[in-house]
Amino acid sequence: MDTKETLWKGRSEGNVHPILIELGESILLDIKLYKEDLKGSYIHAKMLYKIGILNEEELSLILNGLKQIQREIEEHKFPINIELEDIHTHIEQRLKEMIGPIAGKLHTGRSRNDQIALDTHLYVKKLSRQIILKLLEICKIIINRSEELIDFIFPSYTHLQVAQPVRFSHHLMAYFWMFIRDIERMIFVFEQANRLPLGCGAATGVNYENDRLFLKKELNFKELYENSMDAVSSRDHIFNLLYGISVIAVHLSRLCEEIILFSSVEFSFIELPDSLTTGSSIMPQKKNPDLAELIRGKTGKFISNLNSLLITVKGLPLTYNRDLQEDRKPLIESEEILKILEGIHLMILSFKIKEKKLEKSLQKGFSTATDLADALVQKKQIPFREAHHIIGKLVKTCVDNGYTLFDIPQELRKSIHPDLSDDNFYYENIDIQKSVEKKVSRGGTAKKRILEQIQYAKSTLENIKKSLPEEIDLDLN
Amino acid sequence: MDTKETLWKGRSEGNVHPILIELGESILLDIKLYKEDLKGSYIHAKMLYKIGILNEEELSLILNGLKQIQREIEEHKFPINIELEDIHTHIEQRLKEMIGPIAGKLHTGRSRNDQIALDTHLYVKKLSRQIILKLLEICKIIINRSEELIDFIFPSYTHLQVAQPVRFSHHLMAYFWMFIRDIERMIFVFEQANRLPLGCGAATGVNYENDRLFLKKELNFKELYENSMDAVSSRDHIFNLLYGISVIAVHLSRLCEEIILFSSVEFSFIELPDSLTTGSSIMPQKKNPDLAELIRGKTGKFISNLNSLLITVKGLPLTYNRDLQEDRKPLIESEEILKILEGIHLMILSFKIKEKKLEKSLQKGFSTATDLADALVQKKQIPFREAHHIIGKLVKTCVDNGYTLFDIPQELRKSIHPDLSDDNFYYENIDIQKSVEKKVSRGGTAKKRILEQIQYAKSTLENIKKSLPEEIDLDLN
Amino acid sequence: MDTKETLWKGRSEGNVHPILIELGESILLDIKLYKEDLKGSYIHAKMLYKIGILNEEELSLILNGLKQIQREIEEHKFPINIELEDIHTHIEQRLKEMIGPIAGKLHTGRSRNDQIALDTHLYVKKLSRQIILKLLEICKIIINRSEELIDFIFPSYTHLQVAQPVRFSHHLMAYFWMFIRDIERMIFVFEQANRLPLGCGAATGVNYENDRLFLKKELNFKELYENSMDAVSSRDHIFNLLYGISVIAVHLSRLCEEIILFSSVEFSFIELPDSLTTGSSIMPQKKNPDLAELIRGKTGKFISNLNSLLITVKGLPLTYNRDLQEDRKPLIESEEILKILEGIHLMILSFKIKEKKLEKSLQKGFSTATDLADALVQKKQIPFREAHHIIGKLVKTCVDNGYTLFDIPQELRKSIHPDLSDDNFYYENIDIQKSVEKKVSRGGTAKKRILEQIQYAKSTLENIKKSLPEEIDLDLN
Amino acid sequence: MDTKETLWKGRSEGNVHPILIELGESILLDIKLYKEDLKGSYIHAKMLYKIGILNEEELSLILNGLKQIQREIEEHKFPINIELEDIHTHIEQRLKEMIGPIAGKLHTGRSRNDQIALDTHLYVKKLSRQIILKLLEICKIIINRSEELIDFIFPSYTHLQVAQPVRFSHHLMAYFWMFIRDIERMIFVFEQANRLPLGCGAATGVNYENDRLFLKKELNFKELYENSMDAVSSRDHIFNLLYGISVIAVHLSRLCEEIILFSSVEFSFIELPDSLTTGSSIMPQKKNPDLAELIRGKTGKFISNLNSLLITVKGLPLTYNRDLQEDRKPLIESEEILKILEGIHLMILSFKIKEKKLEKSLQKGFSTATDLADALVQKKQIPFREAHHIIGKLVKTCVDNGYTLFDIPQELRKSIHPDLSDDNFYYENIDIQKSVEKKVSRGGTAKKRILEQIQYAKSTLENIKKSLPEEIDLDLN
Repeated sequence: MDTKETLWKGRSEGNVHPILIELGESILLDIKLYKEDLKGSYIHAKMLYKIGILNEEELSLILNGLKQIQREIEEHKFPINIELEDIHTHIEQRLKEMIGPIAGKLHTGRSRNDQIALDTHLYVKKLSRQIILKLLEICKIIINRSEELIDFIFPSYTHLQVAQPVRFSHHLMAYFWMFIRDIERMIFVFEQANRLPLGCGAATGVNYENDRLFLKKELNFKELYENSMDAVSSRDHIFNLLYGISVIAVHLSRLCEEIILFSSVEFSFIELPDSLTTGSSIMPQKKNPDLAELIRGKTGKFISNLNSLLITVKGLPLTYNRDLQEDRKPLIESEEILKILEGIHLMILSFKIKEKKLEKSLQKGFSTATDLADALVQKKQIPFREAHHIIGKLVKTCVDNGYTLFDIPQELRKSIHPDLSDDNFYYENIDIQKSVEKKVSRGGTAKKRILEQIQYAKSTLENIKKSLPEEIDLDLN
Repeated sequence: MDTKETLWKGRSEGNVHPILIELGESILLDIKLYKEDLKGSYIHAKMLYKIGILNEEELSLILNGLKQIQREIEEHKFPINIELEDIHTHIEQRLKEMIGPIAGKLHTGRSRNDQIALDTHLYVKKLSRQIILKLLEICKIIINRSEELIDFIFPSYTHLQVAQPVRFSHHLMAYFWMFIRDIERMIFVFEQANRLPLGCGAATGVNYENDRLFLKKELNFKELYENSMDAVSSRDHIFNLLYGISVIAVHLSRLCEEIILFSSVEFSFIELPDSLTTGSSIMPQKKNPDLAELIRGKTGKFISNLNSLLITVKGLPLTYNRDLQEDRKPLIESEEILKILEGIHLMILSFKIKEKKLEKSLQKGFSTATDLADALVQKKQIPFREAHHIIGKLVKTCVDNGYTLFDIPQELRKSIHPDLSDDNFYYENIDIQKSVEKKVSRGGTAKKRILEQIQYAKSTLENIKKSLPEEIDLDLN
Repeated sequence: MDTKETLWKGRSEGNVHPILIELGESILLDIKLYKEDLKGSYIHAKMLYKIGILNEEELSLILNGLKQIQREIEEHKFPINIELEDIHTHIEQRLKEMIGPIAGKLHTGRSRNDQIALDTHLYVKKLSRQIILKLLEICKIIINRSEELIDFIFPSYTHLQVAQPVRFSHHLMAYFWMFIRDIERMIFVFEQANRLPLGCGAATGVNYENDRLFLKKELNFKELYENSMDAVSSRDHIFNLLYGISVIAVHLSRLCEEIILFSSVEFSFIELPDSLTTGSSIMPQKKNPDLAELIRGKTGKFISNLNSLLITVKGLPLTYNRDLQEDRKPLIESEEILKILEGIHLMILSFKIKEKKLEKSLQKGFSTATDLADALVQKKQIPFREAHHIIGKLVKTCVDNGYTLFDIPQELRKSIHPDLSDDNFYYENIDIQKSVEKKVSRGGTAKKRILEQIQYAKSTLENIKKSLPEEIDLDLN
Repeated sequence: MDTKETLWKGRSEGNVHPILIELGESILLDIKLYKEDLKGSYIHAKMLYKIGILNEEELSLILNGLKQIQREIEEHKFPINIELEDIHTHIEQRLKEMIGPIAGKLHTGRSRNDQIALDTHLYVKKLSRQIILKLLEICKIIINRSEELIDFIFPSYTHLQVAQPVRFSHHLMAYFWMFIRDIERMIFVFEQANRLPLGCGAATGVNYENDRLFLKKELNFKELYENSMDAVSSRDHIFNLLYGISVIAVHLSRLCEEIILFSSVEFSFIELPDSLTTGSSIMPQKKNPDLAELIRGKTGKFISNLNSLLITVKGLPLTYNRDLQEDRKPLIESEEILKILEGIHLMILSFKIKEKKLEKSLQKGFSTATDLADALVQKKQIPFREAHHIIGKLVKTCVDNGYTLFDIPQELRKSIHPDLSDDNFYYENIDIQKSVEKKVSRGGTAKKRILEQIQYAKSTLENIKKSLPEEIDLDLN
């Protein structure tokens, strides 16, 4: 690219080696930032006009040129050339072709260092906001399904062993609160990215009093970077985004693990619709939860993208080092989280519960053994440790003889402890519904507590909606 | 440990294999959580009294017992036994020795699952607050040193090549703003940990209406976990802490890289006091910046501790799984960041600047070449691209002949371009002080801008101090 | 520690700051390397004698001193003092107390840089060999159990959905081959660590012709580091170890996931002995596979220890930098893999199979649907695609009406396709035993293939045993 | 894609949701595996012919079809359609269009599970071999340049402080040995990938006696996977590749750090040619080592790609899970290492040394202070500790007064210690050339040792070349 090379040709001789071009290009990734880059140039041009560096005609030429470039990109007519390295150079070059040397004036008081910083800040803000909106939708669906499914009793697990019965809604709502924390984290991501780096030049500031407050206002930022060296060196805003997404991915990996488990023949608690599963080209019986597996599998990538950028920045002296260009890949790959959330949305919306198998697990897992032990303590005055021991023995007898608590003969129970032969007492206290209703502590699984929880969840959503980050309009118009 | 084993002996037979004890113990790490654990028990006992489960005498016995245990631990008289697994069992066991079976009542409506969740939440709050306070101190020192050193001119770097001159304070203040973002992040860490998990039982809630609002108030939490399953499954609060520390570590690794670079014989910009360096037992001339190297080296550990816990939680179904015990190591290792910050504090406080070498780099690095090119554009009406080219050639001529911009003969300059032979014009525009003063854009390195920046920094510190998280008093009294 | 400080006191003034001592000490970790360090000193002394630097008396004093130090450490009488930083200084200091200034001669032609390199090479060799031996034991157990359990038919899974029936031995033997690869990898680890770094001095070689071939022979190394700068800078041998352990950990995490799954109430395929599970202090029915969970959970740590050291070394210029001291923690933590392998050994040795539940899954999972489709193709000349379609419909009909392939009424089958009503044909081709026996391809699950596989496995083990790395005797004698 | 869907349409109803298609496609990555996939199909077809499943005409149709598909892909005429998911389906589909339903027969006794395993094994073998060849070239260049530059004396560093003088060749050769270990590691990668997974079917083997020994021979594998479940579940071969590349990347990051450091104005030890550096569009003096920075920056990605796949596989039960598809991205991104090695090759080949600055650092860094101390011990009978102290004081005096060892006045030396005033003795022992020649220990930096080292390096290269992995010809012909 003669133009660009010429720009710094004075000291150097000859051409850049192709391998440096190949390893150095970022355009194949940062073309995704075209809206951010164009918007930044658009407002920068307006600022240059405001402080007298551009006249009205020049401004108009530049603004129209930028708009046309946006159209070209959106209509896939914009040529990509890896020798032009990055999105900034592509746009500058195209603008020059369109409006001649005046295009060069747009570069006044700006460098690629603060320009890419601007682009990635705008992108982090846009993407974090989109993630928040998507999570809010999912939270809404969780509330709906929790209300719909409130009367299904589900085994809860610790150590993947049946623990105690819970309302299915309780289990589902656990994810609601994870997603609320994810939203809070993404709001933090948005807020720390809400500082304008533009106007800091290559690293040390620029040679005239530019109007950064105007830039801030027009580009919708809340604060400024107050130190030009910091502005071009920092990748904190991208760290934050990658971290926020990693935690979401870990949460989703847990949910997907459960979807996969609960869809297995052995659990058979839930069923996904055909459209979200795949078959096998060989085995006709297969109905595989591929969507959940794919999402679980992608957790590795998201965690590692964070790891990757932290490593890249580790040990770099100030200010800009070319290493920082490696921020582009993890940043752009982050977009995939939106598709993943869409997939999660669809699964939560559409799974069905298979009640019969739930009951079986609740019984086979002795889910009310604790209740029975508690009852021995409270109603039969047996010390807790002894009660625990008795029920342990009861469970062992069931297991050894193939019974559940519900069908073990009275006689056998009696042989373990006389109090267990009292049928009224016994059946009352192994009742699964009643067990659930006993968990009356706040945050527990009794129906009134779930309803209270759902109520609180609704108001939490309302509160978040009130404080949502503002939309960012990147279209030129 | 017969007691504990007996607790769940009903179903199982025989003893636990020693290898399970060895791999399963966490006490060697979670003894560090003794204050958190004791405080939680203390307030839990009070709550049990409040709702009528403990009578006054029982309460008094328990509270005094817990206080005595605190003393024993602090006086290193508390016996550790890996067969007792964790801090909870150690304390419960010791309390039982002291006050007999009443100790067992403390376990009412609580499980190790919500207990460890409480402990780690309290710990995250404590540590994040300590980190904030330490960072605030460092920020204060940076401001002081920036004021003190404002007249030192320093080469700024991009690509580790000299870029343009800046005030040293400008360079140093870049770290101020990183640390401010670190503080903001730690405040977020504190806030997301400010939810009480206690009172959720093993996973599903407990069998009576405990008073979680009382617990919340007495333990100084702002909110409750509203879902018991979420409360015992989540490790988000630890993720947040480990992430916050990772970013701090990356920032410090950059600072330490600079300290190491700038202390090298070749740079020789700064000098650390002898007490913060080490010599060599072999080479008498060595003065090694070990402290900075150690801190830079530890970045790997902090980034990886985050990675480690994210991996551990990935793909776990709800609720508690024993894998989660692996949160302990990264959590406890986090404390080391306080020592590291202390080391950073000392280095920033005590380094000296070696002015002579700064000047040499500024000259040899042609730090004002850009200013000269700009001047050709502005005062000699040469188009930017041509001016850039001319100065490139000038630099090349200097390099080839061993000159700087300051000592290249007029004649030679003239041969490159006639305008360069105008001595008044020429020396005016390669002047380093003047170059710095031209960077008048907000966030730039001109003196008035630095002073403004420092002013703004001071008010930022004041604002943060106003909104500091409250101190947590974990001592029993 | 006056002695050590004095050693490099000439240039520096005053004392080292306590924070540098605290952050810089490694003795609490590298005391674990005492055998390696003593052995290295022992042989180094012999070499110094051989080339005339020590006389016989001096040699004798030093050797006896080192032996006594070994005893003191083993009898826990050896004092640790973090001001003495590391294992080398501790031993040197103690030797000096015992035999006076002659101790200093041991330092001739050696530095802490090549000394720690030696220690860690010896340690990597020792640990990798121990891991190999432990894996060989496990492999042997797997063969035994595979022979014992060869007639159990197990559902294989893809996507955690029942795929096709296999012999349980086939499933188990899959881990055999993973462990064989792990052994191969550990042999590689051993071999790359089999290069002697001792005799390279601080970085550049030493001032006399030391006898590194003698050192190599006596310390049982196969090769030398041929470049002194490489010898003290490299941590490749530790990378290799950490990597090898990471892959083992990932393999074990898969096995443990299966143990956890298969021990759940819903699968109930296997049962662990009580001694390898734990109960709950609250829920009397629980029998938790904690050992498997703990091991799965530790995967995060092992993967991240590798990550950590790679990060630490990233971007370090040659030669020794203090950052490298951070190799100690991941190195020493590696030992835990031996306990983990012991745990795995115990579980494989002692689990029981619950045949009844296997059968149920095989039936409910329609594990022979593929065989039936194949039979339609081969014996009824129905094109594959159509056959797949027919059996898909058959499965769907079963699912919708609560049947398995084994109990769906003939009439219903007929309604799907006339060929399915032929009972002889039908039952022949859904037979689970027969399905297994059809997989006659090499590496398949037919009995003769399993027996062949086991035979091959045995000879693989024999071959490995022949080429085992030699034992390293680190005891002084 | 009606065809594919129909294949498993029997049980499922309706279409797959677009989001599952979008998240599930891998074709945009695995199109890179087209040669591996075609070659595998080609040989599989021949095997099917050999065992009588295909007749000669069918074989001929299939082989020609595959060849034509290869041409189409290479001429960019092959249509990509993400609904066809992966490379296997694309090729199968296209073959069907070309030769009709006979194409379906190619699927006999094969599944996508063993097919992708084959492709990735072939790819790992190909890439590891290419990396080895590239490293061998670089090793050759290092030897050449070490011979050329043997008389340049360079400061060696510990803690980035000047340590002792070395021959530049010694420094450079340190990388030679790292790369040799990298080659050894890559040979191991190749060897563990040298096992054939094809012929294992979906997971359990196939329903006839396929001829895997024929496949092995024709596809140039050394061994077979002896267990079908292992064959489709394992990603060890990719782990190995990613690990091998990570270590290379860490080595290169150290080299690049040094290139960046040594190209800085302050060090100015080396100079890169213009074609491997870039300028700045703003600062005319800049000559940035972008190539080295880019490579250093990419270390984060390579380390994290390993981390990513380890995480993805962690905790997956056997056998194939869709998560495993996430192996594709890190695998394909691995190719970039070839470009990076090309960049390294170019830099090593073309950098120039700036002797003058070397000398300055050697003097200013007091690089022969140790030699002088040693001389006091050996020739003036001063005990080591005292000698070290005296020279420490000498250095301090120089630093305080702006001298080097070479220009500090005799008088001043005398005031520190009388023996230092003996000019003959003094200058003899601070001589830099002589210092280098004293390091006569094997692996040291004396000239004869370097020559010996280079000799040994050459024979090492020869030995490796003899045992190089065989080339793999993937072209169909």
